[in-house]
Amino acid sequence: MTIAYSGGPLDRCDAVRSDPQALAALRGGPAKVLRLAGLEPVLDAENRLVWDRLEAGDDTRELVFLGLLGGEACFAAVAPGLAGSVAPASPDLRQMLALLRHDDLALYGGARSLVDWHSRHRFCARCGQPTRLAKGGWQRDCTGCGAEHFPRVDPVVIMIVEHGDSLLLGRQPRFPARVFSALAGFVEPGESVEDAVAREVFEEAGVRVRDVTYVSSQPWPFPSSLMIGCHAYTDDPAIRIDPAELEDARWFSRADVAAALAGEGGDEGPVMPPVQAIAHHLVRWWIARGM
Amino acid sequence: MTIAYSGGPLDRCDAVRSDPQALAALRGGPAKVLRLAGLEPVLDAENRLVWDRLEAGDDTRELVFLGLLGGEACFAAVAPGLAGSVAPASPDLRQMLALLRHDDLALYGGARSLVDWHSRHRFCARCGQPTRLAKGGWQRDCTGCGAEHFPRVDPVVIMIVEHGDSLLLGRQPRFPARVFSALAGFVEPGESVEDAVAREVFEEAGVRVRDVTYVSSQPWPFPSSLMIGCHAYTDDPAIRIDPAELEDARWFSRADVAAALAGEGGDEGPVMPPVQAIAHHLVRWWIARGM
Repeated sequence: MTIAYSGGPLDRCDAVRSDPQALAALRGGPAKVLRLAGLEPVLDAENRLVWDRLEAGDDTRELVFLGLLGGEACFAAVAPGLAGSVAPASPDLRQMLALLRHDDLALYGGARSLVDWHSRHRFCARCGQPTRLAKGGWQRDCTGCGAEHFPRVDPVVIMIVEHGDSLLLGRQPRFPARVFSALAGFVEPGESVEDAVAREVFEEAGVRVRDVTYVSSQPWPFPSSLMIGCHAYTDDPAIRIDPAELEDARWFSRADVAAALAGEGGDEGPVMPPVQAIAHHLVRWWIARGM
Repeated sequence: MTIAYSGGPLDRCDAVRSDPQALAALRGGPAKVLRLAGLEPVLDAENRLVWDRLEAGDDTRELVFLGLLGGEACFAAVAPGLAGSVAPASPDLRQMLALLRHDDLALYGGARSLVDWHSRHRFCARCGQPTRLAKGGWQRDCTGCGAEHFPRVDPVVIMIVEHGDSLLLGRQPRFPARVFSALAGFVEPGESVEDAVAREVFEEAGVRVRDVTYVSSQPWPFPSSLMIGCHAYTDDPAIRIDPAELEDARWFSRADVAAALAGEGGDEGPVMPPVQAIAHHLVRWWIARGM
């Protein structure tokens, strides 16, 4: 089962980005622009993404070339007035995203991250002068010092920790009631994936891990993370949470996790993260793997 | 064997970063500042990093709190005049780094990435106004719009591709003579690790891969990448290189790769990447794993 937001349908045609003539030809051919309301998707009656035809010549917006899809060039327009989101997706947005087909979800996620990045990078971090879109939207160039800036992707480690036959899951105050999920945090400069997993689990839950392994990954467009899903063991299950990060963390037995995944956890049991989150897949992977 | 730049010796004490009183106390206690020449390390007669005592009070430099080491607070100073590097490490620098012990190398790598990031982010990408260091150097805040900016880590996939009992390796024009290495490229918004591996191998070498698996990872401080090392298979070994990316790519037999790793490749055979690069470890992993 492919994880939400990954495996997008576009051919990104990266060679085209550096070729102004090829880009111009794509803009002039059969081309379309993803309709967005700010950063949010617009859906038609069948819950598909809505596209507008790109009219040649008179479009002065900054356009990001997303790639080719069924012979058509797909673009997204940078919204100049957009302040740029840094918050997690709202419950309303999540509800809308749950209606999208896998292909549309992956396409929207990538486009959203790019448009958001452009809207938050209209100036040069090196010298403060304005930047302008370059290379089909895969770069911004400073009009002052000439510095080149590239779309940002922030690696995040997200991990399930095992002890005995139980799993360590935690909850943040912003989670819906009874939801417990995998611990997670940004990879910092100077860390490997394995270093970051060990540091985050110790910081958030006071648990020392060993034998970190990679399970799977997912792009997460709020605003533009690469979720790196891992599994680890611990020999000491004593939990000491950091209240600035978590409101609770507990060990859950295999039976409790399996019941929660099956929707049979009752009114008191934990609720697992939604299917669009990689945390859901990590938990499901652990149950499927067995002891 | 721990990969170069990973597994650093510092306790990053992330809770301290948000606590101005604790930070001030650390600056006033036994504290030291990493000596740098621009972004380059300074070594003593025993090839150890050189530290200067941090004098309390009269130091007006922007200081990044790296963490605790043996009870001492370790800092790095942001160099205001530094334009910021975006180039790969020079051969001279690589030679110097090869002299460093593992602990010093990991510590230097993380510090370098942070100092470099600060030097290239003195202005707000959202509004163009100056930023100032916050949270012990793990954030910059805009003095105009208040936007918060965080140190950047760029995820890169780097992968060896297998067919029959041979390995696909490529060379860039900047490589030393006869060096062949794993293909690599930045993860883009909207991609999983596995998506990025498939796209990069096809873009650079025209080869379609399947069954991508993660092998290991490494922080790479030029300027601040997270190298995500993978292995994949292909069913079709026909190579079509992108000359903008590679000057050559070939299939190498297990015997040729093993000989090159052992330094027994002769004057004509390929040369494997140096031990500090994750590509070296990927190739070594493949040889150790056997067929």
